[in-house]
Amino acid sequence: MEYRTAGESHGQTMVTIVTGVPAGVVVTQEALDADLARRQRGYGRGGRMAIETDRAAVLAGVRCGVTTGAPVAIGVVNRDWENWTDVMAPFGEASTRARLTTPRPGHADLPGMLKTSTCDARDVLERASARETAARVAAGGIARALLAQAGVQVFSWVERIGEATCGRIDSARVETALVEGSDVRCPDPQAAAAMRAAIDVARESGESLGGVFAVAAAGVVPGIGGYADAVLRLDGRLAAAIMSVPAIKAVEIGDGLGSAALPGSAVHDPIVYAPGEGYSRTTNHAGGIEGGMSNGETIVLRASMKPIPTLMRPLRTVDVETHEPADASKERSDVCAVPAAAVVAEAEVAVVLADAYCRKFGCDSMVDLLGALSAYRERIAR
Amino acid sequence: MEYRTAGESHGQTMVTIVTGVPAGVVVTQEALDADLARRQRGYGRGGRMAIETDRAAVLAGVRCGVTTGAPVAIGVVNRDWENWTDVMAPFGEASTRARLTTPRPGHADLPGMLKTSTCDARDVLERASARETAARVAAGGIARALLAQAGVQVFSWVERIGEATCGRIDSARVETALVEGSDVRCPDPQAAAAMRAAIDVARESGESLGGVFAVAAAGVVPGIGGYADAVLRLDGRLAAAIMSVPAIKAVEIGDGLGSAALPGSAVHDPIVYAPGEGYSRTTNHAGGIEGGMSNGETIVLRASMKPIPTLMRPLRTVDVETHEPADASKERSDVCAVPAAAVVAEAEVAVVLADAYCRKFGCDSMVDLLGALSAYRERIAR
Amino acid sequence: MEYRTAGESHGQTMVTIVTGVPAGVVVTQEALDADLARRQRGYGRGGRMAIETDRAAVLAGVRCGVTTGAPVAIGVVNRDWENWTDVMAPFGEASTRARLTTPRPGHADLPGMLKTSTCDARDVLERASARETAARVAAGGIARALLAQAGVQVFSWVERIGEATCGRIDSARVETALVEGSDVRCPDPQAAAAMRAAIDVARESGESLGGVFAVAAAGVVPGIGGYADAVLRLDGRLAAAIMSVPAIKAVEIGDGLGSAALPGSAVHDPIVYAPGEGYSRTTNHAGGIEGGMSNGETIVLRASMKPIPTLMRPLRTVDVETHEPADASKERSDVCAVPAAAVVAEAEVAVVLADAYCRKFGCDSMVDLLGALSAYRERIAR
Amino acid sequence: MEYRTAGESHGQTMVTIVTGVPAGVVVTQEALDADLARRQRGYGRGGRMAIETDRAAVLAGVRCGVTTGAPVAIGVVNRDWENWTDVMAPFGEASTRARLTTPRPGHADLPGMLKTSTCDARDVLERASARETAARVAAGGIARALLAQAGVQVFSWVERIGEATCGRIDSARVETALVEGSDVRCPDPQAAAAMRAAIDVARESGESLGGVFAVAAAGVVPGIGGYADAVLRLDGRLAAAIMSVPAIKAVEIGDGLGSAALPGSAVHDPIVYAPGEGYSRTTNHAGGIEGGMSNGETIVLRASMKPIPTLMRPLRTVDVETHEPADASKERSDVCAVPAAAVVAEAEVAVVLADAYCRKFGCDSMVDLLGALSAYRERIAR
Repeated sequence: MEYRTAGESHGQTMVTIVTGVPAGVVVTQEALDADLARRQRGYGRGGRMAIETDRAAVLAGVRCGVTTGAPVAIGVVNRDWENWTDVMAPFGEASTRARLTTPRPGHADLPGMLKTSTCDARDVLERASARETAARVAAGGIARALLAQAGVQVFSWVERIGEATCGRIDSARVETALVEGSDVRCPDPQAAAAMRAAIDVARESGESLGGVFAVAAAGVVPGIGGYADAVLRLDGRLAAAIMSVPAIKAVEIGDGLGSAALPGSAVHDPIVYAPGEGYSRTTNHAGGIEGGMSNGETIVLRASMKPIPTLMRPLRTVDVETHEPADASKERSDVCAVPAAAVVAEAEVAVVLADAYCRKFGCDSMVDLLGALSAYRERIAR
Repeated sequence: MEYRTAGESHGQTMVTIVTGVPAGVVVTQEALDADLARRQRGYGRGGRMAIETDRAAVLAGVRCGVTTGAPVAIGVVNRDWENWTDVMAPFGEASTRARLTTPRPGHADLPGMLKTSTCDARDVLERASARETAARVAAGGIARALLAQAGVQVFSWVERIGEATCGRIDSARVETALVEGSDVRCPDPQAAAAMRAAIDVARESGESLGGVFAVAAAGVVPGIGGYADAVLRLDGRLAAAIMSVPAIKAVEIGDGLGSAALPGSAVHDPIVYAPGEGYSRTTNHAGGIEGGMSNGETIVLRASMKPIPTLMRPLRTVDVETHEPADASKERSDVCAVPAAAVVAEAEVAVVLADAYCRKFGCDSMVDLLGALSAYRERIAR
Repeated sequence: MEYRTAGESHGQTMVTIVTGVPAGVVVTQEALDADLARRQRGYGRGGRMAIETDRAAVLAGVRCGVTTGAPVAIGVVNRDWENWTDVMAPFGEASTRARLTTPRPGHADLPGMLKTSTCDARDVLERASARETAARVAAGGIARALLAQAGVQVFSWVERIGEATCGRIDSARVETALVEGSDVRCPDPQAAAAMRAAIDVARESGESLGGVFAVAAAGVVPGIGGYADAVLRLDGRLAAAIMSVPAIKAVEIGDGLGSAALPGSAVHDPIVYAPGEGYSRTTNHAGGIEGGMSNGETIVLRASMKPIPTLMRPLRTVDVETHEPADASKERSDVCAVPAAAVVAEAEVAVVLADAYCRKFGCDSMVDLLGALSAYRERIAR
Repeated sequence: MEYRTAGESHGQTMVTIVTGVPAGVVVTQEALDADLARRQRGYGRGGRMAIETDRAAVLAGVRCGVTTGAPVAIGVVNRDWENWTDVMAPFGEASTRARLTTPRPGHADLPGMLKTSTCDARDVLERASARETAARVAAGGIARALLAQAGVQVFSWVERIGEATCGRIDSARVETALVEGSDVRCPDPQAAAAMRAAIDVARESGESLGGVFAVAAAGVVPGIGGYADAVLRLDGRLAAAIMSVPAIKAVEIGDGLGSAALPGSAVHDPIVYAPGEGYSRTTNHAGGIEGGMSNGETIVLRASMKPIPTLMRPLRTVDVETHEPADASKERSDVCAVPAAAVVAEAEVAVVLADAYCRKFGCDSMVDLLGALSAYRERIAR
């Protein structure tokens, strides 16, 4: 299972095609839309979120709430498109409105302009926009539905925004109701209040903030991923998926950075066995991944997000046509998008795991996949 | 350009095939062997490094020191193989010597055994061993040679071993001679001494140590990688490559984790222009990557490595045949492999960058690739 | 460059995402729609073609008639969809209308039902329908536009329908105006008349007809594709692309099947050189491909299509619910779709060639790609 | 499962790495070597076959006759290498011996030289040589072993050499003992005699001959491959695999070319059902593939091979250094390699099918794969 997306921030629609989806995945409009809504929430979002309530328009691959085995296509309409038809029209006269020749530091603007040979950063920024992640979340909804049938839950929470942090929370102690009820996705109410305050301060000073979020997957059987080829390793694939979310600058698995400072006896997870239940661990320093594979414990990843580079206090840049110094433009923007990025990362993790399940248990039909999964569970419990 | 490897830790040979290599890459035996030697060095390595001095046996794809455009195959013989022919023979009676039924925490042993349905962890650990990275380093040597012709240098250094650290060193200030002259790959002599001391202490107490290393690539043109598709993003691809090195638990780009705590005005890199030289930045918080692309500044990555899980103070596990508690076995092992991992990560980074160069400038011939690179440099300086 | 499609025959829309498209490809609505129209034409098409005039709705990746480097998304609406909303709705109650439990021989029905574990062939046939090729043609339009800028023309013609044939026509003698003016895509008027007569006879007897078509690409530089890896060979990639068009059962390159019966001296193409023009051949038995690469001559492929398996004289099958013998259902259908398949195959060939051009000359920008192409032409003419 | 190869015709060794091999495939030295020997046999082979008896040196991935789940590496030593060490040395002074500046028509020589920017065709021809197919056959041996455990047999036979032919033989009537006992792989003794006579005539006149062979796979369950994505179609993947064998110019499936001339009622295969056995067909015009999937009948493919382009009666070419007309060089060569190509195509087909089995039934362990296969067989027989 993998996805492709197309679409521009102010184009007609974002669209995704998810291929390799087995037949028999139960999908609901509500669940797809709920994920899109979770991505749009968050204290510190800008004006656009008010304009739009995203909805997943399933165009193909699902009949009567069940995938057929065909590729799934989902569109997410850009409601702002009607104000941009002159700028973003696929055909017709080029519009000079909204042309941007002062690439913004921290964005794809300048390297993208050099790469594609354009003097208008809009050609780049419309695609490089985080708006594209709406399509990823839609694709992730299909993966999440498959995983749910296989007993896997993917969830996320926020641990830091700017300098406000709750420290590392053990995945087993995270109450998802608290997370979903918090507009900063932090299950610790005191830290959440500090995060909101930090966002308020940043907004007033024309700043933006990054942060740290965690994504976890509970219920994954051991042996997903692979040790035999570098490209099959689950840690590598998850790292790529999360690092591909815009503005992510670090990815950790389990104890992550902390593993580097501790002695060996403190970072590995002893193996125990219980009849009928099989093998498990007494700790989870590894974050559920050993040797490039799931080990049966909860998979725990953390990502560090840089502050959004569009600031009300503009950064210094250059006009590509005159080569004169200039201020980077101030597009309408969020102060902080960490909670949204956590939801996007959930989608990315879900797609990687669903793909690994298909690879291990067969790609064609959920009937067969769940049968193979059940047989595997029985075998490894012996 | 990509590589595949095969081979077991105590098998006859490690082997790699590198495909997609343009014709005209200048390769020397000395450079390939020098990389293999750099991987084997390091204070805190175990007995095996004394046994073996790896040598790259180029089997295909290179004629008279120049690649032909054919896949490059390189073998790295395991000199210890002759002591293991009974255990590791491809055919013949199964040997019971060296059978291992007590999977070691922190290794691929247990999830690998469940995945492949074996009761002998040796079937797994022989392939999951870090010995495999010798083949990756050999493959990386081809990529490094290509990059050198394109003006790109990939280098690494160590910043932490256990609790001993020199802090973050600016890539521009790293003297590679100091790194290569240090048996812990640390250019700061005082920190290096502390690292060696930490290793001594760990060895005496039967412990192992992890650490932090950095990998950098200088001279990369802007626009390598891509913002248009998640799978083409350079940050994602580099993260996957480095995370696929055994025992790596975190990957950071540029300011990495630190970006999460700072305000937006402190983490983005202003753009300036100089006639004849083109665009550059006054800082490099982004670690040379914006919007999933190189931005022309030095690419800087950091990785956190957990301590090696094979300890002289054994971890608790279970015998898979009796389900009784047991001590994990003590194979001959290193106390600390952080310097070696840094060299492996160099190879991984080199392959990703070389592949991105081929993709951008053509895959067939260095004559054409360098011509296209030169034309690109001219275009973007205007 | 590659494409993915999604969509069902009676679903809301067919959609394709084309990734890896360089910036700077000039695209017109007219050209995209003209290809879709060519696919819909053809003597012997059924009722559906009268219902629908396909139109390419470019949803992403093109601004003001030029690709931006972002993925291109194109939708092709199914105008018949409004009559099928109950049957094909993504969510809601399952409709029993149009349920099909008698899989049709020659279609994907039965193996698809077994594969995906469904008792309703509609779940399979809606996706396996040749309607999906509308999306392929749309994707091919982007490739064709790129190739046109690079001096490559892809065209096709029909050589056989049932027993009516004009024999093999030399690609150099094919007048595309005659082809496009013929409703059977045959440039030989007499043979075209015989083909139409054969279709009339088949229609009257409740039969269907297959045939043979040729696809050619003129202006391809030598050295596209590859000899070094089996997976890069242009002959293999083209064969896969054409064989993936529904109902194709044979693919030939150049003299194809005929090569098997002739002596070596009669099937190879002597090499000559002309100053300023470089190398060429005095014959083209190889169909423009030697050693898995283009050789500079026109690439010529032929495909054999079986008759459409939906017949008015139904084939024998079994009801999967009762296991009783049954007649295969008679869906509205074409008598002959060979001309349409030729247009689809053009699209497939165009995508393979455009991808090979991007691989050889760089994937990012047409400015750079055409510069690299021009430098290559100069080099090889010396 | 997929393979990569490296190696040159007169290099030290051919080598292949097969990735994605499940643990538990039973492999024997004898079976691997038997396939290599079958590739080397054949009336009309040249002197090189007398020099060499290939042997598969398993370097990795197999322990005590069983795959471990690690990549399998196999070397096939070139015994002629010792006479070529000066020409083919990876390092050291370039040798002028055996330099070739007169590219041979019908080979990869000229397009390869242009592509890779070399004036010595040896850089190209050493890799483009059919010698590389020895590595493919070795890789195919692993796939064949997997398939045997899953109840699938892949076999081949020759139907034409030059003008001598036995016509199409029904796959069900092919006695493999007769094929393996024939030095032209033709089960029809009379036709075999005519084929040998044709080879004798060709040899005397300095000619070479091509021909037609068939490859079949019996025992494949229905539903392998896919209809939902063009790239997953089994017909496309098999066509690519066979067309990638050097000198193949046409691939047919089932009735192939013949389907184009017949009416629909004559080319589709009626479906019947037998309790306990499930669905089958009363004919096999489709060659076991419908809608891009296996349909449970024997898969039957045919390939047309052009005559080997190295002739004793040299073809006309040009010297690339002087641009003067020249005779193409006469390397030691075969008169006819059709029987060998059939064995190579078996290997290619085996790899594609084994990969499709892994995809459908799980990639990790033969225990699990065979369990999933058995469950599937039960489900689809109901």
